[in-house]
Amino acid sequence: MKNTIGTNISLTIFGESHGEAIGFVLDGLPAGIPIDMDQIMADMDRRRARGRLSTQRHEEDVPQFLSGIFERHTCGTAITAIIPNKSQHSSDYAQFKSRLRPGHADFTAFEKYHGWQDYRGGGHFSGRITAAVVAAGSICRQVLKTKGIHIFSHIESLHGIRDRKPDLCDLDTVWSGFPMLDEDRRAQACALAEQAASEGDSVGGVLETVITGMPAGVGEPFFDSVESVLSHLLFSVPAVKGVSFGDGFGFADLYGSEANDAFIVKDGQIVTATNHNGGINGGITNGMPVVVHTVIKPTPSIYKEQDSVDYLKGEPVRLQITGRHDPCIIHRANVVVESVCALGLLDLYMSQLAQEALWNRE
Amino acid sequence: MKNTIGTNISLTIFGESHGEAIGFVLDGLPAGIPIDMDQIMADMDRRRARGRLSTQRHEEDVPQFLSGIFERHTCGTAITAIIPNKSQHSSDYAQFKSRLRPGHADFTAFEKYHGWQDYRGGGHFSGRITAAVVAAGSICRQVLKTKGIHIFSHIESLHGIRDRKPDLCDLDTVWSGFPMLDEDRRAQACALAEQAASEGDSVGGVLETVITGMPAGVGEPFFDSVESVLSHLLFSVPAVKGVSFGDGFGFADLYGSEANDAFIVKDGQIVTATNHNGGINGGITNGMPVVVHTVIKPTPSIYKEQDSVDYLKGEPVRLQITGRHDPCIIHRANVVVESVCALGLLDLYMSQLAQEALWNRE
Amino acid sequence: MKNTIGTNISLTIFGESHGEAIGFVLDGLPAGIPIDMDQIMADMDRRRARGRLSTQRHEEDVPQFLSGIFERHTCGTAITAIIPNKSQHSSDYAQFKSRLRPGHADFTAFEKYHGWQDYRGGGHFSGRITAAVVAAGSICRQVLKTKGIHIFSHIESLHGIRDRKPDLCDLDTVWSGFPMLDEDRRAQACALAEQAASEGDSVGGVLETVITGMPAGVGEPFFDSVESVLSHLLFSVPAVKGVSFGDGFGFADLYGSEANDAFIVKDGQIVTATNHNGGINGGITNGMPVVVHTVIKPTPSIYKEQDSVDYLKGEPVRLQITGRHDPCIIHRANVVVESVCALGLLDLYMSQLAQEALWNRE
Amino acid sequence: MKNTIGTNISLTIFGESHGEAIGFVLDGLPAGIPIDMDQIMADMDRRRARGRLSTQRHEEDVPQFLSGIFERHTCGTAITAIIPNKSQHSSDYAQFKSRLRPGHADFTAFEKYHGWQDYRGGGHFSGRITAAVVAAGSICRQVLKTKGIHIFSHIESLHGIRDRKPDLCDLDTVWSGFPMLDEDRRAQACALAEQAASEGDSVGGVLETVITGMPAGVGEPFFDSVESVLSHLLFSVPAVKGVSFGDGFGFADLYGSEANDAFIVKDGQIVTATNHNGGINGGITNGMPVVVHTVIKPTPSIYKEQDSVDYLKGEPVRLQITGRHDPCIIHRANVVVESVCALGLLDLYMSQLAQEALWNRE
Repeated sequence: MKNTIGTNISLTIFGESHGEAIGFVLDGLPAGIPIDMDQIMADMDRRRARGRLSTQRHEEDVPQFLSGIFERHTCGTAITAIIPNKSQHSSDYAQFKSRLRPGHADFTAFEKYHGWQDYRGGGHFSGRITAAVVAAGSICRQVLKTKGIHIFSHIESLHGIRDRKPDLCDLDTVWSGFPMLDEDRRAQACALAEQAASEGDSVGGVLETVITGMPAGVGEPFFDSVESVLSHLLFSVPAVKGVSFGDGFGFADLYGSEANDAFIVKDGQIVTATNHNGGINGGITNGMPVVVHTVIKPTPSIYKEQDSVDYLKGEPVRLQITGRHDPCIIHRANVVVESVCALGLLDLYMSQLAQEALWNRE
Repeated sequence: MKNTIGTNISLTIFGESHGEAIGFVLDGLPAGIPIDMDQIMADMDRRRARGRLSTQRHEEDVPQFLSGIFERHTCGTAITAIIPNKSQHSSDYAQFKSRLRPGHADFTAFEKYHGWQDYRGGGHFSGRITAAVVAAGSICRQVLKTKGIHIFSHIESLHGIRDRKPDLCDLDTVWSGFPMLDEDRRAQACALAEQAASEGDSVGGVLETVITGMPAGVGEPFFDSVESVLSHLLFSVPAVKGVSFGDGFGFADLYGSEANDAFIVKDGQIVTATNHNGGINGGITNGMPVVVHTVIKPTPSIYKEQDSVDYLKGEPVRLQITGRHDPCIIHRANVVVESVCALGLLDLYMSQLAQEALWNRE
Repeated sequence: MKNTIGTNISLTIFGESHGEAIGFVLDGLPAGIPIDMDQIMADMDRRRARGRLSTQRHEEDVPQFLSGIFERHTCGTAITAIIPNKSQHSSDYAQFKSRLRPGHADFTAFEKYHGWQDYRGGGHFSGRITAAVVAAGSICRQVLKTKGIHIFSHIESLHGIRDRKPDLCDLDTVWSGFPMLDEDRRAQACALAEQAASEGDSVGGVLETVITGMPAGVGEPFFDSVESVLSHLLFSVPAVKGVSFGDGFGFADLYGSEANDAFIVKDGQIVTATNHNGGINGGITNGMPVVVHTVIKPTPSIYKEQDSVDYLKGEPVRLQITGRHDPCIIHRANVVVESVCALGLLDLYMSQLAQEALWNRE
Repeated sequence: MKNTIGTNISLTIFGESHGEAIGFVLDGLPAGIPIDMDQIMADMDRRRARGRLSTQRHEEDVPQFLSGIFERHTCGTAITAIIPNKSQHSSDYAQFKSRLRPGHADFTAFEKYHGWQDYRGGGHFSGRITAAVVAAGSICRQVLKTKGIHIFSHIESLHGIRDRKPDLCDLDTVWSGFPMLDEDRRAQACALAEQAASEGDSVGGVLETVITGMPAGVGEPFFDSVESVLSHLLFSVPAVKGVSFGDGFGFADLYGSEANDAFIVKDGQIVTATNHNGGINGGITNGMPVVVHTVIKPTPSIYKEQDSVDYLKGEPVRLQITGRHDPCIIHRANVVVESVCALGLLDLYMSQLAQEALWNRE
């Protein structure tokens, strides 16, 4: 299925950037879970456009809950919320209908939908759709939190400027702003992004996400390994072009003797001395922090004039994108990445709970 | 579902390394497709252990077809094959039951299966299981080939030794051996792997996979983007810890003006001048070659003594792995990666065919 | 998944009777299909409460489309519509929270949702939810119609009063009202239902649904036989307690020589001389009309005083249901049954199209 | 998916009647469950052909387990077994390739598979495939039994001869033979079946299945109601043409006041005074016995000469089926029906366990 994902917990998303509304249906949560609406709004705010590094469109993304929540608790049915699309300047986009924006889905939408696609603002391909993902993910995250599972992420690198590694005291931080840990590097990174903006260009980077508190034993190989489930969700997020776990592509340069995480006994628990494998062995969590890297490509909407083609005329055009766009989106993608991780891990966690509950060995 | 994946075409795999047999059920292919058994064996051979760089276990992996093929053609029902496990030296592994091999799934299997797992030879976590994946993938690949879709891959880098980029004339090559294009680099890489082997160590690397002939318009966003479907499958393959598309993690260091692929008209077709996005925009193929990178971590089975823990005793142990193991597996993982790509792309291709067939705009 | 069903075409429904809104997400339709909103309203009207035999609540069920339709055609993304809940007299239901209505889901909801369920008006168990099913089904039906596939149904029997069998000229009739073919029987049936109403009671009956124009070869055994897919959907409809195909339970009294449908050649086509099997052999359509029977139990909301229990107090109570309720719902269930049949058949039809398109034997 | 079904517990079946083997993959069971092979064989025996009322083919259906079971317990991976096809007299069936047997899937297989189907012995449509279903179902049943859930069924009616209703002391009976409770009726029914056999004809009937010990709260509406899940599976079984719950089609003749099950308090528990709804309200179990009726049509293979058509020649033929066939199969279908009920209920039960485990209200 295309717009639905998950097994015990499933998420359906819908909506186009300039249609009536976007939204989601989150299904499978048991009844009686208290939902903190302020927390949802806090997560929504992290994704929203703010400041100089984000577009000036004013997005009031307040999810309107239609079902599944009754008297501030889950009531056992599918949770549905919509986020109306208010600030639609559709005319800004009309010129793009057949003038293909490089790096966007304009061409592939034409090829797949034969001209019937809602081209306004990127339609279903718009980053705006991720607002629904964040609202749903915030609920999943609240549930995980009651189990002691926390999700943290930061910008590991922005166009070559690398943040310091997070340490334990960072891991309960929730970032709102430009999530780099090292203040100097953050200032450098913001300056670099603003410089790119001033040149009509954009920059990309890498997010590092760390999930702590995951019990060992979660994950369903062969096909539903933790890596499989998380990467499936992460690659749904617009602009994600690479996902790795633990040392990721760095494994290519290690010897086995360097890459293997030795087991040790610590405080009576079996843990690994290092965490090259990012908390996952054989597709199953090992109790160490789950470490995910996600690369976010530079925003394809740039002001520099670009070579393109008019799809309907089949002729070359010079394209100048107007309107307001972010010179980078990685600081907003942060919470989207955390949200899909929350969904995927909650689903896998429930699968393991079902197995434990069916055959309790005590 | 854990051991089943796919929508119109689905694959179920089963088996443990030292059980009776491994195998697969491949469901959804229409009747009447001729199946070339020699081609399946050729693909199986590519995955088999050979030469100095592979284990000396003699694996006669001949799939025995039980259903779904009648008079050498698909008959419309689920195709099932088993590959019996013949060369079982289970006693080699008995000592590992509670002595956790670093980098393997021994610990996570204990945590998930509470001691009931089939620990022999890695059980369901063994790379051996991929023999079933290759046999099934070979069938999918034969079908794609009739549509002009070809899958090629090579070792882009082995422990820092980088192959040259493939060019057009490489793309119908099927590699059996050590798939590096540049002969000098291949010799260097083999020497390096053998050197690691002589030190009781192992090495990893990166595979580059290129799929040509994919028509534009295939892929089912939001959740079943081409990247999502392929990465889900790729991360099921043991030892895969990172997957990227096009420039992948390199996007982090590009400006938008460098990363965007300009559209041009060539031979009357709209194509992109470059292929930074690896043939995929908005999760949908754009007609350019699909380019995937997959990192294969160093084989965790090494001869060097390692620190570990005896799970049942809860005590530290020094672990010395015996038996025969590959110093690298990337040259064998090659065909496994191609196989899961074939499965994922065929499934997405059928989804698009269904939509085109329902609403043919001619 | 609980509130999502389907493979190539999937439907997600949501909402509680007295929440903000109910609605649906219909996913998988190709772009470019014209959607007739008047036809959707006509189908919605058939389900609405009217006349003496239906409740006097005024339900203005106008679906508000939020996504997936652009310029009156499908645009290739998920189609979402909501139907706001306007006429909520929640206080009518407050007394029922713990006073269990016999024949309803009040008790099972308490057992499953532990008191957190939205009890007002039956919540997610309300027949009102079927308004979303009808709107989605109407779209599927419009698509099927373009392929020459038509769905017809009538009340075969109401509390023992049997309608005549439909003939060919009935099969393109769409019923709005009390769908019995024979006028006398219809009058009798209405009188009987009104008599039941006057006694504070209710009646049930059997719907016969006939689908014409289905090509042979649709259906995906083993598990997705036409019967399996349709029955799964039909048993989701509140009040359905039995489903059968062709002669159904009548097969129990036939000899094989009576039950088998002989093949004959008619107008150059192979058809069956009779249609005991209801257009389905081996789970696959045979080109004859698909014939489905669905039993609708008597409306559980009756005015007669009933024995019950207060769930929270654990004590017996005498229960007197107030408010307005239908003495029968079968004439409204008619279009709901047709709607889920449309969804199921369209999904199976697309599966077959995908197979035909992949391996076209011409 | 066609040959795979289920969510937390999934079953994949494969095989054709005269291919190498049939079999199944049962996925999702936790590790450590003891498997009683004798019990599996006992269930297999119930399905096997015996005595005068069954075919004289000697089927030695001994499942060979290939994976998922280690040291007589589940080991957490997919359980696979094959049942080789030994007694293949394929030549018996060669004449039928294009001579369509009425009531069978010969015609629909031609239409769907375009002549490529494995026509021998009905191929994938053969009742033989149900041997795999029974073996898998037997495992599910063993698990349910440890939870106090028992499945019983009997022949409620055979061609009009009705058995008495089961009472409590019948409900732990497992039938092997001709499962009618009343000895006189059983003798009559057997005589009638033998009479039909002597006339080259066959008879059908209705099975009543009763599941006791199901806790209240199991079932996942809207779409995965208990009725939906069970009927989906039941209609996959060859020869099933109708499924109902509780009073089933009898509801058509009841008043609401008769059909509603009043709630009472008994031994401190809330139960219903009657069980018209067959243990299910709103698609969720209510703790009362789940009661299912399944109609089994008369065996389509009869010796009487029948009118048919040669598919390839397009000409009428008179068809005389030879070989050995059952005059009725209902006494063998008994255990198949129980098996699919076990699978469906175990899957729904695990879904509920996952929800309870995630949000335990104690």
